[in-house]
Amino acid sequence: MLFASDNWAGAHPLIAENLVRHAGGAAPAYGASDLDRKVANTFNDIFEREVAVFFVGTGTAANSLAMSAVARPGGVVLCHRDAHMIADECGAPEYFTHGRLGPVDGALGRMQPSQLENAVAKYPPAFVHAGQPAAISITQATEIGTIYDIDQIGAISQIARRHDLPLHMDGARFANALVTLNVTPAEMTWKSGVDIVSFGGTKNGCWCAEAVVFMNPAQAAEFPFIRKRAAQLFSKSRFIAAQFEAYFHNDLWLETARHANEMTQRLATHLARSPHARLGWQPQANEVFPILHNDAAARLRAAGITFHPWTPPHDLAGTIGADEALCRFVTSFATSPDDIDQLGLLLA
Amino acid sequence: MLFASDNWAGAHPLIAENLVRHAGGAAPAYGASDLDRKVANTFNDIFEREVAVFFVGTGTAANSLAMSAVARPGGVVLCHRDAHMIADECGAPEYFTHGRLGPVDGALGRMQPSQLENAVAKYPPAFVHAGQPAAISITQATEIGTIYDIDQIGAISQIARRHDLPLHMDGARFANALVTLNVTPAEMTWKSGVDIVSFGGTKNGCWCAEAVVFMNPAQAAEFPFIRKRAAQLFSKSRFIAAQFEAYFHNDLWLETARHANEMTQRLATHLARSPHARLGWQPQANEVFPILHNDAAARLRAAGITFHPWTPPHDLAGTIGADEALCRFVTSFATSPDDIDQLGLLLA
Amino acid sequence: MLFASDNWAGAHPLIAENLVRHAGGAAPAYGASDLDRKVANTFNDIFEREVAVFFVGTGTAANSLAMSAVARPGGVVLCHRDAHMIADECGAPEYFTHGRLGPVDGALGRMQPSQLENAVAKYPPAFVHAGQPAAISITQATEIGTIYDIDQIGAISQIARRHDLPLHMDGARFANALVTLNVTPAEMTWKSGVDIVSFGGTKNGCWCAEAVVFMNPAQAAEFPFIRKRAAQLFSKSRFIAAQFEAYFHNDLWLETARHANEMTQRLATHLARSPHARLGWQPQANEVFPILHNDAAARLRAAGITFHPWTPPHDLAGTIGADEALCRFVTSFATSPDDIDQLGLLLA
Amino acid sequence: MLFASDNWAGAHPLIAENLVRHAGGAAPAYGASDLDRKVANTFNDIFEREVAVFFVGTGTAANSLAMSAVARPGGVVLCHRDAHMIADECGAPEYFTHGRLGPVDGALGRMQPSQLENAVAKYPPAFVHAGQPAAISITQATEIGTIYDIDQIGAISQIARRHDLPLHMDGARFANALVTLNVTPAEMTWKSGVDIVSFGGTKNGCWCAEAVVFMNPAQAAEFPFIRKRAAQLFSKSRFIAAQFEAYFHNDLWLETARHANEMTQRLATHLARSPHARLGWQPQANEVFPILHNDAAARLRAAGITFHPWTPPHDLAGTIGADEALCRFVTSFATSPDDIDQLGLLLA
Repeated sequence: MLFASDNWAGAHPLIAENLVRHAGGAAPAYGASDLDRKVANTFNDIFEREVAVFFVGTGTAANSLAMSAVARPGGVVLCHRDAHMIADECGAPEYFTHGRLGPVDGALGRMQPSQLENAVAKYPPAFVHAGQPAAISITQATEIGTIYDIDQIGAISQIARRHDLPLHMDGARFANALVTLNVTPAEMTWKSGVDIVSFGGTKNGCWCAEAVVFMNPAQAAEFPFIRKRAAQLFSKSRFIAAQFEAYFHNDLWLETARHANEMTQRLATHLARSPHARLGWQPQANEVFPILHNDAAARLRAAGITFHPWTPPHDLAGTIGADEALCRFVTSFATSPDDIDQLGLLLA
Repeated sequence: MLFASDNWAGAHPLIAENLVRHAGGAAPAYGASDLDRKVANTFNDIFEREVAVFFVGTGTAANSLAMSAVARPGGVVLCHRDAHMIADECGAPEYFTHGRLGPVDGALGRMQPSQLENAVAKYPPAFVHAGQPAAISITQATEIGTIYDIDQIGAISQIARRHDLPLHMDGARFANALVTLNVTPAEMTWKSGVDIVSFGGTKNGCWCAEAVVFMNPAQAAEFPFIRKRAAQLFSKSRFIAAQFEAYFHNDLWLETARHANEMTQRLATHLARSPHARLGWQPQANEVFPILHNDAAARLRAAGITFHPWTPPHDLAGTIGADEALCRFVTSFATSPDDIDQLGLLLA
Repeated sequence: MLFASDNWAGAHPLIAENLVRHAGGAAPAYGASDLDRKVANTFNDIFEREVAVFFVGTGTAANSLAMSAVARPGGVVLCHRDAHMIADECGAPEYFTHGRLGPVDGALGRMQPSQLENAVAKYPPAFVHAGQPAAISITQATEIGTIYDIDQIGAISQIARRHDLPLHMDGARFANALVTLNVTPAEMTWKSGVDIVSFGGTKNGCWCAEAVVFMNPAQAAEFPFIRKRAAQLFSKSRFIAAQFEAYFHNDLWLETARHANEMTQRLATHLARSPHARLGWQPQANEVFPILHNDAAARLRAAGITFHPWTPPHDLAGTIGADEALCRFVTSFATSPDDIDQLGLLLA
Repeated sequence: MLFASDNWAGAHPLIAENLVRHAGGAAPAYGASDLDRKVANTFNDIFEREVAVFFVGTGTAANSLAMSAVARPGGVVLCHRDAHMIADECGAPEYFTHGRLGPVDGALGRMQPSQLENAVAKYPPAFVHAGQPAAISITQATEIGTIYDIDQIGAISQIARRHDLPLHMDGARFANALVTLNVTPAEMTWKSGVDIVSFGGTKNGCWCAEAVVFMNPAQAAEFPFIRKRAAQLFSKSRFIAAQFEAYFHNDLWLETARHANEMTQRLATHLARSPHARLGWQPQANEVFPILHNDAAARLRAAGITFHPWTPPHDLAGTIGADEALCRFVTSFATSPDDIDQLGLLLA
């Protein structure tokens, strides 16, 4: 029972099978195949507008190249202090944008709008010494399994608009957030002011399928060169297209996300009932962060259950005792209710 | 009948099936799975020594990151003037190394050792204005389907040793060269003085499987960070491992390469006999470059045969008439003898 | 009366005159002149060992290139959260190192050793997601006019040694710190574990004279190329050498620094006595940060006195009232006691 | 007698004296002083339009940052194969633009328009593999002391316009070209289609005074951040302004350039008459490239005369015998007719 990460799963059977289906035959490389085009159109349908879609290999690539598309000299991308871009990408966004990331505070993994305003204010126009803001990025779902609701996205996007900054959404767990909010992709993005999305499929059942999606294709004019220069243009690009084709077919992606979220809720119920654990906060996607008594954690590990300890977020500092620890459990399309219930028994 | 490129093919059925086989279950991400480790050991076996292997997503990534590992300030990577790194990677190697590529002349796609010596001499030690050499890179097979034989690799590597420069091999078509030379991977690389290999599987039957291989693991100490910073560390890394597993199983890779080369030889025979074509030069791998009469080229295209015109290499300049054109035909694991013979009929 | 910054002053007369003295004649360019060599030797004398000295044009260049010399992929330079490199260099250090800066907390502008340890611990060895530490940098004197004493430098350097990290000193106000501590340059640097110094002359009476000084010349092997590639190799390099020659002659640099510091102490005395002001903290170099009543600040400005408001450091947050503001006054070699006393009268 | 380079001279006395004149007093830093503004206005006068002027420290910085202002992903700056940017800047332009330089052939140091067209054609629009052109750069005077006349600049600029590429002029020896052509700065730049100029003062009598001049200030919107991020914003910026003030006063700059050019013509006359030398080509600025008999070269060196051997340009290859060598002699504001005539005697 591996709850270490949703990327410890392999690929959903339907996605793996679709790769086999498309393995034969020949087709233009570098994204020019019929299948690539068909899937690009599916993105248009999903977002209810013409978007510009670019497949890339990793979520870090999606974020880094999205930010490259809006980079500025001395530019700063403002994002939550615990954002994946800051904490888990080895400086890739800075490397590709030749700029920096500006950490913004906020409880429960979300940037606080007033803190974001303060952060923007650190860069007065034309004050070269500090640099200049280049973009705002939110993570949906956040690194700690919470979600910006539509109003919260709107509040961030108003700040972005006021300062003429593009708004990016790191959607490594886009589908997990979408099904929780029960809104459309359009509502969660451009209708709420989001300009660019890192659209992740890998954590939700694909082998390797990530895309940068520009809501306004005009903003993507230079992106083909950005992607190629970054070594992210795949020759047999249709191996990504084939994954997305199956991912979207019959709303598989929503089904897998819904399942993963439900497994997390089921686990949260067990945790809430357990005398050995309490929830750090309420999960909203496919990750739950309990504060486990050290004995219970050891018991789980002894039973072969894999999960990661987690550095407590800033707003939780000081609330965790010496005999307990914050931990992260992640569920995926491949998690079974039985897995959860067995884990629950160990915590009872 | 598509002869545009070997990357217009999909994946070999055995490789696609192996992806399905490994789709289930859960395993550590980021290259730490048992399968990743097993395949890394296979690389050790293949190269007859302990090597350091890093999977990446594209050939451009393999080249660019390999060169990053040996980059120097103001550094110049010396390679053939028509090398893939110069002509077809949108400046990625320069982008990742923060340096430049130094073009070296030589007939038939191979660097001429004397020209390479001249190129190195442009960068006298400690003369900061010119910059400094950082590495030498050869392409095996070359961009125009020729091959460095073992002596030719040795001649280049002696220059590399004399100037204390690492020698890199862009092996996007490593297997095609290997089966032509009928040598071992060890003989074609470290036994001939090669330090780092961009080991390509994609053009030879994989979906997406490339690796940077360091013959001396000590030289790879910083490479894990180089790869992650470059957004080339795949979370579900075993989707690449699974491809390589099938690729190496029962020497599939040598079989697919041998087949592709044979198809090119079969096509070359047709071309040599044709009154409408002549060979630009003798093919040695899976690409043949005929000089086609324009009428014949039009006839092929009208018959639905896809192939690319090709800019004549420097040493062929002026030998091509106005009513003819240099073209490139590439064969792959998926090319059938019937395809070739039908094409041959059209040229008869 | 301009107290906005020490870089609002021009050049000390003796330095300007030395430029005239050396204007005639011809000499090898790019640092190879006799004068360049003579001054390089003076640096050896000053630091009581053979050092490697490289002139550059700005303090930002000195810091950025010093850090380039020790950069690593995914690398993080740890420095105080309000360090000049973070707050005032428009992202130049990140731009040149292709890495990032890691902010460390600490009162009065100095990194707290325990906080520094915590910061280093965020980057466990071989954990690629976070990146890796590359260097530690202290600012001496700090951005808020305080000074690391010898023991405090030693405490930082012990952490650096323990983690095998180079220790850099941003010495834009090196001389001001030196005369306060009343130690030798050797004691304040390599004898305390400092490896690389950004040695500033500009703020202390030069027009434009900065240097990167490596205590261990072997560490500077690639630096000539780093500097040239960064466009910081001056052809008529001796215009910098001539400034440093006069700067060091008869200890002018210590005299100008001592004078600037004394002017700050004189101003601090006025401020401490004033009913309209209080000191934010005790000044140790040539900057004083009073908390001024808004009326008093307005009165000074009306009298033509120039100074900057200052964002309160983290550890002072919440201690400043609505009718007052933290301000910065900087003195230089050119500040006169009369200037100070007139300012004092306005505050009485 | 040093003919190695015009940057072996120091500063013109009037320029050095002006630095002394402005050494006193205090003024806003970072380019905001009255003197900075006054000199910026002088640039407007000189170019007969409102331009945007940015002081930087070196010619390499001027070129590299000018190109940064028009950089594109995968971008290529087209310039002559022997341009200073390619041959003598240690890869700085590529480093700052994250792109590459594309060498263009042409006799006598000037790009041949047809060759330039061919070079642009290597980058078909939207063909990501090759990259894309970003700018065209000419050197005026060229690296080998020749000059583009107004028609030749116009021919290049027409190509630039047709492909919508900015045209840059590396004017490290701007004044030397200007006085030879006997045209106005406006005529040699924007009236001929030049968009951005690297305006050099250092080689023509300044200590350290270079500027990037945008003919269209709107194109410079991001440049303040580009310069600061590149560590090229000088705090005591007026030390550059003071040099330019003296440089332009009473047309000193034209006088020094005219003198240097005349000295070169005088030397060329001696060389043309000498039985031991012949001119490689006719000099047009302040550099002359004789082909010297080895005996004569040795005699000069024995007499203490300093000059550099020079790699023959492509179009001269094979025309130089084994007992002779191409050499470069550079004259400056500081060269005296007596120096020239003594050198002439040695060659008689």
